[in-house]
Amino acid sequence: MTSIALAFLSAGIGAGLAIIGAGLGIGKLAAAAMDATGRQPAASGDIRTTMIIAAALIEGATLFALVVCILLAIKT
Amino acid sequence: MTSIALAFLSAGIGAGLAIIGAGLGIGKLAAAAMDATGRQPAASGDIRTTMIIAAALIEGATLFALVVCILLAIKT
Amino acid sequence: MTSIALAFLSAGIGAGLAIIGAGLGIGKLAAAAMDATGRQPAASGDIRTTMIIAAALIEGATLFALVVCILLAIKT
Amino acid sequence: MTSIALAFLSAGIGAGLAIIGAGLGIGKLAAAAMDATGRQPAASGDIRTTMIIAAALIEGATLFALVVCILLAIKT
Amino acid sequence: MTSIALAFLSAGIGAGLAIIGAGLGIGKLAAAAMDATGRQPAASGDIRTTMIIAAALIEGATLFALVVCILLAIKT
Amino acid sequence: MTSIALAFLSAGIGAGLAIIGAGLGIGKLAAAAMDATGRQPAASGDIRTTMIIAAALIEGATLFALVVCILLAIKT
Amino acid sequence: MTSIALAFLSAGIGAGLAIIGAGLGIGKLAAAAMDATGRQPAASGDIRTTMIIAAALIEGATLFALVVCILLAIKT
Amino acid sequence: MTSIALAFLSAGIGAGLAIIGAGLGIGKLAAAAMDATGRQPAASGDIRTTMIIAAALIEGATLFALVVCILLAIKT
Amino acid sequence: MTSIALAFLSAGIGAGLAIIGAGLGIGKLAAAAMDATGRQPAASGDIRTTMIIAAALIEGATLFALVVCILLAIKT
Amino acid sequence: MTSIALAFLSAGIGAGLAIIGAGLGIGKLAAAAMDATGRQPAASGDIRTTMIIAAALIEGATLFALVVCILLAIKT
Amino acid sequence: MTSIALAFLSAGIGAGLAIIGAGLGIGKLAAAAMDATGRQPAASGDIRTTMIIAAALIEGATLFALVVCILLAIKT
Amino acid sequence: MTSIALAFLSAGIGAGLAIIGAGLGIGKLAAAAMDATGRQPAASGDIRTTMIIAAALIEGATLFALVVCILLAIKT
Amino acid sequence: MTSIALAFLSAGIGAGLAIIGAGLGIGKLAAAAMDATGRQPAASGDIRTTMIIAAALIEGATLFALVVCILLAIKT
Amino acid sequence: MTSIALAFLSAGIGAGLAIIGAGLGIGKLAAAAMDATGRQPAASGDIRTTMIIAAALIEGATLFALVVCILLAIKT
Repeated sequence: MTSIALAFLSAGIGAGLAIIGAGLGIGKLAAAAMDATGRQPAASGDIRTTMIIAAALIEGATLFALVVCILLAIKT
Repeated sequence: MTSIALAFLSAGIGAGLAIIGAGLGIGKLAAAAMDATGRQPAASGDIRTTMIIAAALIEGATLFALVVCILLAIKT
Repeated sequence: MTSIALAFLSAGIGAGLAIIGAGLGIGKLAAAAMDATGRQPAASGDIRTTMIIAAALIEGATLFALVVCILLAIKT
Repeated sequence: MTSIALAFLSAGIGAGLAIIGAGLGIGKLAAAAMDATGRQPAASGDIRTTMIIAAALIEGATLFALVVCILLAIKT
Repeated sequence: MTSIALAFLSAGIGAGLAIIGAGLGIGKLAAAAMDATGRQPAASGDIRTTMIIAAALIEGATLFALVVCILLAIKT
Repeated sequence: MTSIALAFLSAGIGAGLAIIGAGLGIGKLAAAAMDATGRQPAASGDIRTTMIIAAALIEGATLFALVVCILLAIKT
Repeated sequence: MTSIALAFLSAGIGAGLAIIGAGLGIGKLAAAAMDATGRQPAASGDIRTTMIIAAALIEGATLFALVVCILLAIKT
Repeated sequence: MTSIALAFLSAGIGAGLAIIGAGLGIGKLAAAAMDATGRQPAASGDIRTTMIIAAALIEGATLFALVVCILLAIKT
Repeated sequence: MTSIALAFLSAGIGAGLAIIGAGLGIGKLAAAAMDATGRQPAASGDIRTTMIIAAALIEGATLFALVVCILLAIKT
Repeated sequence: MTSIALAFLSAGIGAGLAIIGAGLGIGKLAAAAMDATGRQPAASGDIRTTMIIAAALIEGATLFALVVCILLAIKT
Repeated sequence: MTSIALAFLSAGIGAGLAIIGAGLGIGKLAAAAMDATGRQPAASGDIRTTMIIAAALIEGATLFALVVCILLAIKT
Repeated sequence: MTSIALAFLSAGIGAGLAIIGAGLGIGKLAAAAMDATGRQPAASGDIRTTMIIAAALIEGATLFALVVCILLAIKT
Repeated sequence: MTSIALAFLSAGIGAGLAIIGAGLGIGKLAAAAMDATGRQPAASGDIRTTMIIAAALIEGATLFALVVCILLAIKT
Repeated sequence: MTSIALAFLSAGIGAGLAIIGAGLGIGKLAAAAMDATGRQPAASGDIRTTMIIAAALIEGATLFALVVCILLAIKT
């Protein structure tokens, strides 16, 4: 077993953990966004903007982590 | 046991963890979407649009992670 | 123990974890769907459509992960 | 210990994890179904249909995972 | 230690995990059933039917998993 | 250490996990049963019948799992 | 280290896990019983009967599991 | 390291886990007992009797498990 | 490493787990006791008696477990 | 690595786990004490007495466990 | 296996854990931000500013941790 | 690897676990203290006294545990 | 594998755990800050000041821990 | 691998765990502080003082633990 083996192990599990974080985070904020829309349809555009800003922050960090994972997965 | 063995291990478990994240996230936001629809049927179209945008963000990251996993699963 | 052994290990556990995610996700959104139906029987068709779209997103990712698992389970 | 040993290990634990997911998911949505029936007995048929559709989605994925497990359990 | 050893390990733990899932699931839906009966004694028959359908779905998958476990436990 | 050793390990832990499931499940539904009795003493007999049906479903699966465990515990 | 060693390990941990299940289950249903008694002192006898039936179901399964554990603990 | 070593390991951890179960269970039911007393001081004696019956059921099973642990701890 | 080593390991961890159980249990019931006192200062003595009975049950089992741990810690 | 090594390992982790239990327990009951004081400032002295009795029970068991840990930490 | 192997392992898993923290944190605060916007659309700008300050604090620490991870992932 | 190695391992992890306990405990009770102050500013001094007594109990046990950890960390 | 390997392992995982703590903590307090702003826009400046003081306390400890991690990551 | 290796491992993970505790604790109490400020802006100074006292208690213990970690991280 060479050193690369653990890089492969870490790539898959790290990607899985990152999606747990991203899923819980975006799921929670989008749930709140739809809740707020349902309560105040008039503020719908304003809420959707806020939602996309916050989701982008999580998405950005997630993609950064996934890039770390893909770096590890394609080591040879 | 060659280095590939741990890649296989990580592919399956990583895919499983990613689905936990995606399931919890999309489940939570879709639950909120249906809750909001039930409370304000008039805003139904608006809510469904928001739901699909947010679900797409999670789905995208999940598929990215699953691609990392499938890369690991088909190593030879 | 050859490299395939860990592929087998990962296939079963990954499938189990994926079902945990799918079960929690679809369970949560279907619960919300029935809750909303019980509160607004008139919007029943609209809610069921939203439910099926969201469930399909989770189901799709789950089947993708299960295909990764079955790929690992039938390695020889 | 041959490679098959880990297939056996994964078959049992994977089946157990899959039932945790299925149990939590179907339990949650059926609980919501009965709650909604108790609140609106008139919509009982409509709710039961929705419940069976959603439970079938979870049941289907669960059986798929159990088939992966049984494939692993009967390896020789 | 032969390969069968891990089959034995997996049989017992898998059975235990499956009962956790079944117990939580049936416990939750039966709790909701009794809650609904207590609120609407008139709909009692209707609710009990729904409860038995849903519990049967969980029970069926659980027994399937237990059969996988017993297959593993009686290997020689 | 022969193969039987892991059968013993799995028997005890599996039995413990099964009781966790059974305890949580029966505890939850019996709690709901008593709650409903306290709210509607008139429906007491009806609720107790439902409780015993549901508890029997969990108890049956639990005993099935315990039989798997005892099979493993008395291997020689 | 002979095979018996793992039987001893499993006896103690299994007994501990079984008590977690029994404690949570009986604790939850007895809490509900006392809650219901406090709300309807008139139904006190009826509730205590239901409580003892349900607690007996959990206690029985727990003792069954503890017997499995004691079988493992006194192996020689 | 002889076989007895794992018996010692299991004695301490099993005792700890058993106390977690007993503590959570008795803590929960006693909390409910005091809650009910605070709401209905007149039913105080009746509630305390119910509390002691239920606590005895948990205490009994816990002591049974602790005896299993002490059997393991004093092996030589 | 002799057999005693695992007895030492188990003594410390078992004591820690036992305190988690005792702390959660006594903490929960004492919280309820003070809550009830705050709501009904007149029943203060009655509630404190009930609290001490229940706390003694947990304390007793905890000390029993700690004695098991100290037996393990002073082995030579 | 001599037998003492595991005693050291267990001393630190056991002390940490004991503080988790003590912190959660005393934190919960003191929170309830302050809640009750805030609601009934007149009963302040009575509540503080009850709080100190209960906290002493947890503190005592915790110190007992910490003594077990320090016994293990100073072995030579 | 050289020392670098564990650096690779830690890079992927650490990135995954960091995203769990970032996702939960930003998800929670953005959910509160949208909730508050829905309740007081007039304070929308003020709330969004507060949200971005707090999210930046989490994002900053997350990126710091991801840089630690990428440092580990590109070691040779 | 000498025996001291595990003492170092246990020092760091034990200190971390102790802070989890202390943080959760003091956090919970201080939260309740501020909640009560916000509801009854007049009882502010009385509440702060109670808070400091309870926090001191947790702080004391925590420092005791940290001293155990530092004893382990400075072994040579 | 030299001693440095474990330093690398600990750097990544420690950084990840620290971000979980920081994310949950800052997320919770910023959520409360926005909640309070939404309820009392007039106190907005006062609340934001309190939020930044508390967030700084967490941020400071987090950066301290990250510095420990980076010290470990750049060992050679 | 020398003894120092485990000191490094413990330094990073211990620091991470300590931040989890500190983050949860300070996050919870600061959230309560802001909640109380939002409800009673007049008591703002009084609440902030209480918050800083309690946060200092957690911060102090956290820094103590981090010092233990840094002691371990700089061993040579």
